Amino acid sequence: MKVSQTKTRLGIVGGGQLGRMLTSAALELGLTITVVDPGENPPAKQVGATHIRGSFDDHEAITQLAEASDVITWEIEHISVEALAEVTINKKVVVEPSLDTLAMIKDKYLQKKAMADAGIAVSDFVSLASETDAETFFGKHSETGIILKARTGAYDGRGNYVVRSHGDIAAGFQALATSELYAEKLENLEREVSVIIAKGDDEIKLYDPVDSVNENNICNLVIAPSQAPQAAQQKCVAMAQQVAQALQGRGVFAIEMLVTASGEVLLNEIAPRVHNTGHHSIEGCRTSQFEQHVRCVMGLPLGETDLLADYVVMNNILGSFDGEVTFDGFGEALAIGAMMHAYGKTPNKVARKMGHFTMLSREGESLEEVLQRAAHARKVIAL
Amino acid sequence: MKVSQTKTRLGIVGGGQLGRMLTSAALELGLTITVVDPGENPPAKQVGATHIRGSFDDHEAITQLAEASDVITWEIEHISVEALAEVTINKKVVVEPSLDTLAMIKDKYLQKKAMADAGIAVSDFVSLASETDAETFFGKHSETGIILKARTGAYDGRGNYVVRSHGDIAAGFQALATSELYAEKLENLEREVSVIIAKGDDEIKLYDPVDSVNENNICNLVIAPSQAPQAAQQKCVAMAQQVAQALQGRGVFAIEMLVTASGEVLLNEIAPRVHNTGHHSIEGCRTSQFEQHVRCVMGLPLGETDLLADYVVMNNILGSFDGEVTFDGFGEALAIGAMMHAYGKTPNKVARKMGHFTMLSREGESLEEVLQRAAHARKVIAL
Repeated sequence: MKVSQTKTRLGIVGGGQLGRMLTSAALELGLTITVVDPGENPPAKQVGATHIRGSFDDHEAITQLAEASDVITWEIEHISVEALAEVTINKKVVVEPSLDTLAMIKDKYLQKKAMADAGIAVSDFVSLASETDAETFFGKHSETGIILKARTGAYDGRGNYVVRSHGDIAAGFQALATSELYAEKLENLEREVSVIIAKGDDEIKLYDPVDSVNENNICNLVIAPSQAPQAAQQKCVAMAQQVAQALQGRGVFAIEMLVTASGEVLLNEIAPRVHNTGHHSIEGCRTSQFEQHVRCVMGLPLGETDLLADYVVMNNILGSFDGEVTFDGFGEALAIGAMMHAYGKTPNKVARKMGHFTMLSREGESLEEVLQRAAHARKVIAL
Repeated sequence: MKVSQTKTRLGIVGGGQLGRMLTSAALELGLTITVVDPGENPPAKQVGATHIRGSFDDHEAITQLAEASDVITWEIEHISVEALAEVTINKKVVVEPSLDTLAMIKDKYLQKKAMADAGIAVSDFVSLASETDAETFFGKHSETGIILKARTGAYDGRGNYVVRSHGDIAAGFQALATSELYAEKLENLEREVSVIIAKGDDEIKLYDPVDSVNENNICNLVIAPSQAPQAAQQKCVAMAQQVAQALQGRGVFAIEMLVTASGEVLLNEIAPRVHNTGHHSIEGCRTSQFEQHVRCVMGLPLGETDLLADYVVMNNILGSFDGEVTFDGFGEALAIGAMMHAYGKTPNKVARKMGHFTMLSREGESLEEVLQRAAHARKVIAL
């Protein structure tokens, strides 16, 4: 085998923290990176990406990106499929993972339907044309309740509305008024498990399942490996493999699954990109999800995904106030073993993802002890 | 303990590959980085350092660096102590590790003398004022031979001249004509071992001893941990600790030692900076030497240094031709587990350090097998 790296220019739609970590990984492989981002000094620019300033659906910016790139990928799925399709036609640029996949995944209803059609277990769901449709669906699941969800543009819990009684339906439609909606049965959750998968040229690699612990609907704490019972984990891995087969295009995907109280595994959501539930892989795995995604889209062989410690814990650093970024407490967090990742964002804002840190278990250390260190680090970081 | 990170601006003299890897590490800690480098687009600039163009003894450039920095360090010791001393006086900038240490280490004769005075075992050595001094010293060691060495400015074997007969002395003086010289007894070497040490505020951390295998006088292959007999390794660790105590200033130092055929350990050289024999620490250790150095000089707590695999092998990627950089073979190297680091240098040149790669042993793999993979990767990388 002789793999020649003839494609060396990577374009990324989006230059936030995910684009930043992709950029750092790509530079080590000798690539040049260009990002489109509306910000003035986006995180990816700060670590060496060439920056084209523009919104994610700015045809002029995307055209420039296409001219500067052999391959285009994205760090965020809320981008214009049309703009990308239009500017990349007739250009010698490859878009990975494919635009068809992006279009399918962006619309959560289409995503769910495609996966259900592929035989993958999902919660009962239905498209909604009216409140009456929601009434009917709620009638079917009045014992558990349902969730109204925006089909597109939703993330970190935004665009979801939980319905536990008939009266909630009208309020939900009002709250989510600007979006096309669908509904899902509310499940009796035991935990959320995520598996990062990487689709290369002719190979698929899976990372170990992790537990994703949300707070205020934002993934905040990731525990690797997952502490779900072995049987549930095996189902998660099998489902991730099934999803991998069903997806078109090369790249890293996050397969988010629900494990119910009865041990059933249901597909929750697919992210067609590197994901918060894979950040631990920078220090915790042989190949980070960021390098892996770059390898996938550039047609390079994939790297090993094994964990490098018994337990790896990742914690987001969310802003706790509005104002200037300070680094009080970073030192104390470092002192107890936190590996810090600042994203270079200014200013600090409440609930803004300002960085993350990772902790690897020490020789013989229990998960409980690692989690205690992580909780301590989180407390002292004053961002 | 409450460590507040009030210093956030790091200045580095030199923006080559070491400055690049320092920059990447420092950005993750939320720092801003400025480098002084004579190049147009030095490696550190490409990953996010602000670049002041100027030579390492350019007073104007160093003055600008001092104004942009809370702490100044360097990636190369062949810089002007005087320029740094002059421009940093009256400025609120700290220079780490101290200028006294830099002055002592830069002059290999003074370095050797200081270490011998501190009770550290070194090869017999002598300062040379004339060829007659060399004749006398050779007379004492005619059985083994001696090496003439330039006191300053030498690296990668340049500035050394091996004397095995009286006739070599005049030739050696001619070859090294521009430098002040000293001489060392030639030892019957078994291997070269390096220990990376980190001196923080009130703590010292050591990395595991590694074997440094030179080719054409350039460190080319590093094997972690060292395969020297346990007794020799223990002597190396003890010597590194002794040297750490004897050195002023905060930072990472490489302690290069000679293990003789009889198992004796002698100090060879100290590098007052991150070093080629510590590159494996990026993937191979809990904390890379680059992040560790940044922590040291910024007054932050140090990180753990444990190896993350049974064996970690680092190989330099040296240019094998003059011309444009191509990446043929990178893919094949990745396919067998190489973790690549391209330095962003152009053009390719014979023997130029263009990058490096690291291999971690897989579950149950022998060192022999890892070395075979490394040799294979090295063969296919066409740089």
